[in-house]
Amino acid sequence: MELSNQLHTDTGWEFYERTFDPQQVVTTGSNFMIGNGYLGYRGTLAEWDAEQHVACVVADTWDTAEPGRLTELCNVPNPLYFQVRVGDETLSAFAGATTDYARAMDLRCGLFSRRSTWQGRAPGAITIEEEKFASYDDIHLLAMRYRVTAQQDTEISVLTGIDGRVWSISGEHFRHTEAHTLGDAADLIAMDVVTVEEGTLIRVAEGLNITGSVPVHASVREVERRVLREMTFRLRAGDTITFEKFASVQHSNGVADSQAGALACVERARDQGFEALLAAHRQCWERMWAVSDIRIEGDLESQLLARFNVFHNIIHTPSHARLPVGARGLSCQVYQGAAFWDQETFNLPMYLYTQPELARHLLEYRYDTLDGARRKAERLGYSGAFYAWTSGKTGDELFPDFFFTDVLTGRPIRNHFNCWQIHISPDITYALWLYYDATGDWDFIERCGAEIAFEIARFIGSRVHLRVDLDRYELIRLLGPDEYHENVDNNAYTLYLSHFAVDRALVLYEQMQQRAPEQLRALRARIGLTDEELSYWRDILHRLYLPQPDADTGLIEQFDGFFGLEDTTPAELRQRLIDPGEYWGWPNGVAVHAQVLKQADLLQLFALLDDFSPAVMRANYEYYEPRTEHGSSLSPSVHALIATKAGLQDEAWRYFMEAATIDLYSRSKKVMSGGSFLGGIHTAACGGIWQVIVRGFAGFEIHDGALHFAPHLPARWQQFSFPLAFRDNHLEVTIDAGGVTVSAAAANQAAVPVVVGQQQLDVTPGSTETLFA
Amino acid sequence: MELSNQLHTDTGWEFYERTFDPQQVVTTGSNFMIGNGYLGYRGTLAEWDAEQHVACVVADTWDTAEPGRLTELCNVPNPLYFQVRVGDETLSAFAGATTDYARAMDLRCGLFSRRSTWQGRAPGAITIEEEKFASYDDIHLLAMRYRVTAQQDTEISVLTGIDGRVWSISGEHFRHTEAHTLGDAADLIAMDVVTVEEGTLIRVAEGLNITGSVPVHASVREVERRVLREMTFRLRAGDTITFEKFASVQHSNGVADSQAGALACVERARDQGFEALLAAHRQCWERMWAVSDIRIEGDLESQLLARFNVFHNIIHTPSHARLPVGARGLSCQVYQGAAFWDQETFNLPMYLYTQPELARHLLEYRYDTLDGARRKAERLGYSGAFYAWTSGKTGDELFPDFFFTDVLTGRPIRNHFNCWQIHISPDITYALWLYYDATGDWDFIERCGAEIAFEIARFIGSRVHLRVDLDRYELIRLLGPDEYHENVDNNAYTLYLSHFAVDRALVLYEQMQQRAPEQLRALRARIGLTDEELSYWRDILHRLYLPQPDADTGLIEQFDGFFGLEDTTPAELRQRLIDPGEYWGWPNGVAVHAQVLKQADLLQLFALLDDFSPAVMRANYEYYEPRTEHGSSLSPSVHALIATKAGLQDEAWRYFMEAATIDLYSRSKKVMSGGSFLGGIHTAACGGIWQVIVRGFAGFEIHDGALHFAPHLPARWQQFSFPLAFRDNHLEVTIDAGGVTVSAAAANQAAVPVVVGQQQLDVTPGSTETLFA
Ligand SMILES: [Ca+2]
Ligand SMILES: [Ca+2]
Repeated sequence: MELSNQLHTDTGWEFYERTFDPQQVVTTGSNFMIGNGYLGYRGTLAEWDAEQHVACVVADTWDTAEPGRLTELCNVPNPLYFQVRVGDETLSAFAGATTDYARAMDLRCGLFSRRSTWQGRAPGAITIEEEKFASYDDIHLLAMRYRVTAQQDTEISVLTGIDGRVWSISGEHFRHTEAHTLGDAADLIAMDVVTVEEGTLIRVAEGLNITGSVPVHASVREVERRVLREMTFRLRAGDTITFEKFASVQHSNGVADSQAGALACVERARDQGFEALLAAHRQCWERMWAVSDIRIEGDLESQLLARFNVFHNIIHTPSHARLPVGARGLSCQVYQGAAFWDQETFNLPMYLYTQPELARHLLEYRYDTLDGARRKAERLGYSGAFYAWTSGKTGDELFPDFFFTDVLTGRPIRNHFNCWQIHISPDITYALWLYYDATGDWDFIERCGAEIAFEIARFIGSRVHLRVDLDRYELIRLLGPDEYHENVDNNAYTLYLSHFAVDRALVLYEQMQQRAPEQLRALRARIGLTDEELSYWRDILHRLYLPQPDADTGLIEQFDGFFGLEDTTPAELRQRLIDPGEYWGWPNGVAVHAQVLKQADLLQLFALLDDFSPAVMRANYEYYEPRTEHGSSLSPSVHALIATKAGLQDEAWRYFMEAATIDLYSRSKKVMSGGSFLGGIHTAACGGIWQVIVRGFAGFEIHDGALHFAPHLPARWQQFSFPLAFRDNHLEVTIDAGGVTVSAAAANQAAVPVVVGQQQLDVTPGSTETLFA
Repeated sequence: MELSNQLHTDTGWEFYERTFDPQQVVTTGSNFMIGNGYLGYRGTLAEWDAEQHVACVVADTWDTAEPGRLTELCNVPNPLYFQVRVGDETLSAFAGATTDYARAMDLRCGLFSRRSTWQGRAPGAITIEEEKFASYDDIHLLAMRYRVTAQQDTEISVLTGIDGRVWSISGEHFRHTEAHTLGDAADLIAMDVVTVEEGTLIRVAEGLNITGSVPVHASVREVERRVLREMTFRLRAGDTITFEKFASVQHSNGVADSQAGALACVERARDQGFEALLAAHRQCWERMWAVSDIRIEGDLESQLLARFNVFHNIIHTPSHARLPVGARGLSCQVYQGAAFWDQETFNLPMYLYTQPELARHLLEYRYDTLDGARRKAERLGYSGAFYAWTSGKTGDELFPDFFFTDVLTGRPIRNHFNCWQIHISPDITYALWLYYDATGDWDFIERCGAEIAFEIARFIGSRVHLRVDLDRYELIRLLGPDEYHENVDNNAYTLYLSHFAVDRALVLYEQMQQRAPEQLRALRARIGLTDEELSYWRDILHRLYLPQPDADTGLIEQFDGFFGLEDTTPAELRQRLIDPGEYWGWPNGVAVHAQVLKQADLLQLFALLDDFSPAVMRANYEYYEPRTEHGSSLSPSVHALIATKAGLQDEAWRYFMEAATIDLYSRSKKVMSGGSFLGGIHTAACGGIWQVIVRGFAGFEIHDGALHFAPHLPARWQQFSFPLAFRDNHLEVTIDAGGVTVSAAAANQAAVPVVVGQQQLDVTPGSTETLFA
């Protein structure tokens, strides 16, 4: 079927384009990208380079090029570069005539493919077929098959190797670049780079198998940061040369010997060949899809979109190590490859019920960076753990004091994401509690979770202020999810999440007392936790201000005084812009003094905590939605989720489609980022789509160890199904107009209680039950 | 002697100009103005009108022309208008030839005079001599003598009467204007106006005595908001016509029948004549100067400047009623004729020891506006009394949420003077305590002072936040005197003043318990004061955070984090301005992220509370002074005062001269005010000069009922003297190189203890003692 944005899908497992649109080089490079949580390789054509934003972004390679520049992940040298020449012409999508063009992404196994037939000035067209994947079987491996077919007798020359002319948003990250010819037969090439700040040694190695022809001439040469094989082939009409290329990217933060490791990986891959490697990689994806795939009947577009978003949530999440998922994942350097609160609230929930070990990794990453959060708290005059708004390797704050530039004055703007958006810390307690609730992983609590929760409660204890005259604790000077309003007091979202975080810290304390008193004693001693602090937390729990829904209207004020701001609309404010690139928020943007939101705090609150009635959710949805500008890609999926819970199905569908297509249909808002590259995958929206479908359309919640469903089947869908992992039990859930069908895997250890409306059933191992809504 | 700015003085009692500078119409109109605390009449020429900013600004006539415009005092119709015509030419300072020009101000009795000889196209020059004063004997009265002398035979026509074509900064204040011919002989004219908002009926009445000639033709006519007598005179060479003009301005907020009152006043004045009225007015000034005059020997310029500033502090302070002294007094409508914190901290201290009843008036005005302060507190979510930043009749906040306009974007700026600059309230407690300390006026405490102090302490109790983890109360989100930094925490000035205010509230509570238990009981009942509140105040007193001087450097940080801001200079920041009219502060002005001050909080603190050693004052002076831009006219006098106390005499002299000449030498900073008129007298600087001389150069302080002096005689002065009233005793203090000489009036009731250095003496009634420094 034809989708929007010149895209097509046939099965809901793949999407492809047949038109090459030079205007969309940035967005298609993200949408067609491959990746495996260790590296992301953009979905560009093999003949391209930095100018077309070719990039291979690698996890755990953070570097700061120079003081004052942003810390970011490295774009490493590109080992998949190909150049084909006929006479003095170079094959290009931008010159000559291209026919028979197609670029496709097979989501089932993360395989990029592309075909094009090119006609230059010389007679005889050349057909290129390109396939590549980032292996899940060996995360360091990129494998590629590049086929060249001549339609007439011709001589072509091929340049291929490693292109080290990488681009970066925030400066030159490599203080040293060196090329090598290596391997048993001296037929491997490699490029070593050393990063400026950390001295990380990154090796990119490459090896080639060539079949179908033998070069009449071959050499290797180094030219301006490239190490290239140059080969000449004489082809007869119909001849196809197949290049199988195997590249390995290894760095000293991840492996002991990145140089030897990369060589061994390429040698091994070359021995196995492309097909065998693809088969092993495909098996990995089969295992992942078995626990993750959402199947939708009745609307092929929804099916493709669901898979696209789940796929991207997966490939940007490191599975090999305790590393964060970035706001743009591994699709580019924007947002620094760093974790934001999106990680816990948008990306992580899917893993709880699909690959809980990935959720654990993300939380262990927060444990590994606890010292950074402690340093940040101390630096700002607080105690405990104030997590970085932008968190990289160490957990020290990566978000700069001055981020945006005022387009009207050229002056830097001191936005306060890094110091006032404190909800990042309680958001982490929220996620760790979700993880514990979904998995029952007590070991994690003992090792990491309790300490994180205690330090976050401690931070909140140092951040609240007591209004003695009102007998309540308040949170002053905040920046909530609605980032257009900085410097607000008693932001409802932050208050509720902070209350939740203190409450769960105390619950975990009690459980530690029961289950691990020795470990608790040691932990108390190590972090200096006292009984006075625990009493203080209890006092905060009792006296923290929690704004209640208005008795008449059901509305909760987003923060103190919000309802007193100018009541207007995003459309009206847009008219007031002097420059379309203006930031709407701090310090004096058009939304600052208006009831216009970047994203809705209250809906975000409802998305996390289920303490609010459908009527309250609906009242607040109807109030805040028309006032929301959706300046954040996090906003639409939350609207979809809450619209569903509030019984507003048309709204839910509209926002579901908006959230699901942000990237694929190039609908993302292009915000000024200080850098030049504005693309990349909005990974939070990807994680949000899983939540809209499973938590929204299926109405999935856990209460007291039972799985609850409150389905709202979208009108266009006949049914949808998804797997759920819950405490070592595996279930398959199918929702259709008739109800909810739950199948339990035969290997399950226990019956799983399932609730739909008033019905409750225990689904025993190997059985299938249907509950009617 | 010749002063700066084309000014001269001969005796130190008067100043005059002999050059007419059309560029200085705005500033000379203020500098040469007359006034009596009830009205201010700008020092313009009688032939001028709105175009030259003629204005008669009248106390207690606040009006808001339309919603959204600033509330301000009215410019009433001008009854002193004269136009002289020879043929078809009108006598003017701007056309024709003017010789023999002089404009003078006699500060001794507040008499404006002006002379000029004008030559038009017709042969024969005309000499004008104009004198006018605003009577202190009858505050409603303006008296004028206008003499016209012909040097050749000529016929002149004179137009004089009431010019109702007034200008206002913030809209048309009169919804009704009506002219009358009135009086026993129908020879008085009057103009009645009714204000838009309050319906205040203001009458301006005028009567004339003419000697030296008799008009050959006379009529009265009304033309476009003017009611004018038109007279024709035939003059022989050397003839002088003398017009004595008597005008009365009365309004329904001040008198029961403003219409009859104004008529009676003019009739009475016309009966007495200019000379007799001037004699009575002069006597009033003699009484005022007897208690206020600072006599300086050795530098005539200093002498004149001291008197100029004391004179202006006096004429802008209402003495007839419980009304505020405006930041620009009665010199124009800028700053709305409203009280700011300047009133208590800059204007009032002089009165404590010169005319304590005026200090009491100002504080009674704060009592009268206590309900407005209560309303403001309640509206913003606090208790007690949060005084208006800009306070008019009712004490409700007159400062608008949006005051400045960003010159770079045209967008309004939400400055937070009205809601974050909370020190206004404790500043009032400070002043009432000073008053009580200087006068011992217990009656005032019982009637007004205790209630004000309790409600201010109550406000502070609702404004502090307890940091439980740090065991201290804090004040969050402040705007201190350094207005370039909004939204700061723990501003030292505000913390110390708040501590002082709570402390004095508790002291007054104890004294009320002792001296007026019944009244205390009634007051407690009326304002609902509880024992719990008193305990709470004591807790605040003990745990309010008071930033201490650094043990090594002696520095006190102006607010949390100030020392972490960019360390630069005002000159450097000036280079960064995109537009010279930019506001340097909120939201993103050049000083926001820099250690550059509008005025120095710490020096201001030292100016009020004497809890700090000279070494600490000096360290902070030396740190903050180079970083101060002096964007406020309050800044130089405080620098002079603290430089003196810190032993930096050159600095003190430099800033004394700067502060003393802000207006007279036209050195004020022209800040954007939202209106078109930027002039006016900086009354706070005037009050500040008295403080620099008496509190600074004489080192006068009161401790435990004794008068302390720590003199620092400026190098250019041989000696200086000033009167001091202290608890019904009158003293004359003379400082010279030898020491401090104190003469006690024979009528004093008690000996006054005086301390200089280690010496202490009781100066008995009628005696004179000299103490050596
Ligand atoms: Ca080497
Ligand atoms: Ca009438």
